[in-house]
Amino acid sequence: MKNAIYAQSGGVTAVINATAAGVIQTAKQYPNQINKIFAAKNGILGVLNNQLFDCANFTSTDLNKLYFTPGGAFGSCRYKLKDDAEFEKIVAIFKEHNIGYFFYNGGGDSQDTSLKISERSAQLGWPVQCIGIPKTIDNDLPFTDNCPGYGSVAKYVAISTLEAALDVASMAESSTKVFVLEVMGRHTGWIAAAAGLISTTPLAAPHIILFPERPFEEQKFIAKVAETVATCGFCVIVTSEGVKHANGQFLNAQSSTDAFGHAQLGGVAAYLSNLVQTKLGLKNHYAIADYLQRSARHIASQVDVEQACALGKHAVEIAIAGKQGVMPIIVRTSNTPYQWHITDVNLNTVANIEKHMPDDYIRADGFGISEACRQYILPLIQGEAYPVYHNGLPDYLHTLGLNFSGKVPC
Amino acid sequence: MKNAIYAQSGGVTAVINATAAGVIQTAKQYPNQINKIFAAKNGILGVLNNQLFDCANFTSTDLNKLYFTPGGAFGSCRYKLKDDAEFEKIVAIFKEHNIGYFFYNGGGDSQDTSLKISERSAQLGWPVQCIGIPKTIDNDLPFTDNCPGYGSVAKYVAISTLEAALDVASMAESSTKVFVLEVMGRHTGWIAAAAGLISTTPLAAPHIILFPERPFEEQKFIAKVAETVATCGFCVIVTSEGVKHANGQFLNAQSSTDAFGHAQLGGVAAYLSNLVQTKLGLKNHYAIADYLQRSARHIASQVDVEQACALGKHAVEIAIAGKQGVMPIIVRTSNTPYQWHITDVNLNTVANIEKHMPDDYIRADGFGISEACRQYILPLIQGEAYPVYHNGLPDYLHTLGLNFSGKVPC
Repeated sequence: MKNAIYAQSGGVTAVINATAAGVIQTAKQYPNQINKIFAAKNGILGVLNNQLFDCANFTSTDLNKLYFTPGGAFGSCRYKLKDDAEFEKIVAIFKEHNIGYFFYNGGGDSQDTSLKISERSAQLGWPVQCIGIPKTIDNDLPFTDNCPGYGSVAKYVAISTLEAALDVASMAESSTKVFVLEVMGRHTGWIAAAAGLISTTPLAAPHIILFPERPFEEQKFIAKVAETVATCGFCVIVTSEGVKHANGQFLNAQSSTDAFGHAQLGGVAAYLSNLVQTKLGLKNHYAIADYLQRSARHIASQVDVEQACALGKHAVEIAIAGKQGVMPIIVRTSNTPYQWHITDVNLNTVANIEKHMPDDYIRADGFGISEACRQYILPLIQGEAYPVYHNGLPDYLHTLGLNFSGKVPC
Repeated sequence: MKNAIYAQSGGVTAVINATAAGVIQTAKQYPNQINKIFAAKNGILGVLNNQLFDCANFTSTDLNKLYFTPGGAFGSCRYKLKDDAEFEKIVAIFKEHNIGYFFYNGGGDSQDTSLKISERSAQLGWPVQCIGIPKTIDNDLPFTDNCPGYGSVAKYVAISTLEAALDVASMAESSTKVFVLEVMGRHTGWIAAAAGLISTTPLAAPHIILFPERPFEEQKFIAKVAETVATCGFCVIVTSEGVKHANGQFLNAQSSTDAFGHAQLGGVAAYLSNLVQTKLGLKNHYAIADYLQRSARHIASQVDVEQACALGKHAVEIAIAGKQGVMPIIVRTSNTPYQWHITDVNLNTVANIEKHMPDDYIRADGFGISEACRQYILPLIQGEAYPVYHNGLPDYLHTLGLNFSGKVPC
């Protein structure tokens, strides 16, 4: 009887640990097929470095907390396997621990890693069943209806935009008139698009959404801001971090330096704020959500949490059934009510494909989402999967207490 | 029988509308003392401009939603009354609408406005009972145990720091090692201090909190970041926007300009991020919470919401009882369990006093909070006052639907 390894890879999310909980709990339900389930520290690096955590050490309390704890409980990594020597080392570690199953939970790059490990382990005479499990707030994996992590970041961005819009509307007559929220999305506008869910009328906030899929046109942008402030008294803008000029250069790739010769920092929000200030002289503020958006488990989408866990469960079940080299995906069969089920696709069809927003999901003027886009995203933010609280704070698993390395918890 | 005006002033909060709901509902309970209760549009500006909303037009559904809607439902303002002519105009509006009570809901500057209106209305022969109602996320009003709005921003900052810390801890081995969260607080560190609630061990995140009450010492800061990354593998920093150099200059008051001669934007977080990059070469990220923190009604503190509403109720009750020229305050009688009641102080003792953090609330090394500070803040973030949701989003009152001005809702 073989053992299994589960590992987390790439940028973490509010719900990746729900997938982990799904994998671990399901593996424990097959004691005749899977002996031990290990979690690798920091993704594939933990396999390379032989840093494995035996999940049998989890108490049931820990497992329950894992389900609603954001971040990657076992650590994640951004690491591309370099050469044959690394694959050989991984397979040697697999042999040493009698590993028959490898579950790799990540985005596009990680699915490529899963595929290669699947192929190389077979070539090296120790075939391991590799299952990729999708995860990315960027929502850019192909085939699957959506990617676990996206629904929760979408919910966070929609709610935050709504709340900030109510704030700015309150103050606009004598104070701030323009507010910019910068969200993640270097290549795709899925996250920024979620802010569009709060618009119920053509003039409602957010008045402007900027997508990486559309080149930034300064004059058109400035005219839209000025027109919105004239009509509504204020203007709320949500921008993807990855918005580019027509020449392909990122807005935030600035060449200027400060008095000490340091490169000027500041992302798209600072750039747009500066533009609004200098071209229109309007008082403005900006927020940068950064990691807050992808770790905001306190307002995770119930649909997202359920799908994340279900994909983990499904991954184990198809491995037990003999599948390998595949990734479970979500298939949508209905918008209203939202209905979905899980199937799987071969990893070699998935790896390194990036799913951009379809053209018809972006409004004709380029500053908002279409009704088709709303119908797509809205089901993904349904339900509030609140964590358990203790003494005013979420009672998250103190993940560094897992203490792989003997370091003190920080 | 006289009418009453309620108005909102200064930066809005997640719970100022709970105070509004408390005022309106309580006023309706005294039909023999208060005939009509008006809300002024955009604070004192709405009185000056004769833009008053008759709260009788509120449906009970609207009033229920008002209780859990962030921002200022009636609009707020940053406006200092200029001259005698303005006071005379205000008193003329009071006469026109037969106003006998004026409830002004704001911070320190607004309490000063309340005091002056109280004095001038009497001098001009139309004495109005003025009651100031405290509100400010900055928590810097004197006498009151805390200021409504603070408990909720404290809860948001503590939770966001905890969640981001779990995220950074997951990624640190092969990616981001330093994370900076910039929060509000131009003169006081109360908001940043709340992040300290998540530290349960001396080495736990946030590893560094920067307060306006302590001068920024670059070498000490850099050494602490380097030491923390060496020990823990990552470092989480929470900074007040108002941190200053020893010479009193704000860290974010930069004199450099970009290639077009524009002033370089970017606050404290960008400044610190730049420092960490250039001095230590460590990969880092930063978030700027800005308006998100003070409008985050989705995770408001139950204690804060209850106190905000209770202060509104109390304000009406003492006005009915004949008091004027006062501000209700919260008095704490016990930390564990948290016990409090409401009394009031004269406005002339309150106006223009700013309550800084006591010295013994800041840890000796200047980078964290003391146990006394924890005991003070922790009761204020207790309980989760979730709003009602509809279709995945909070069912907030569409406040611009109040439509004072005939403008389309934006």
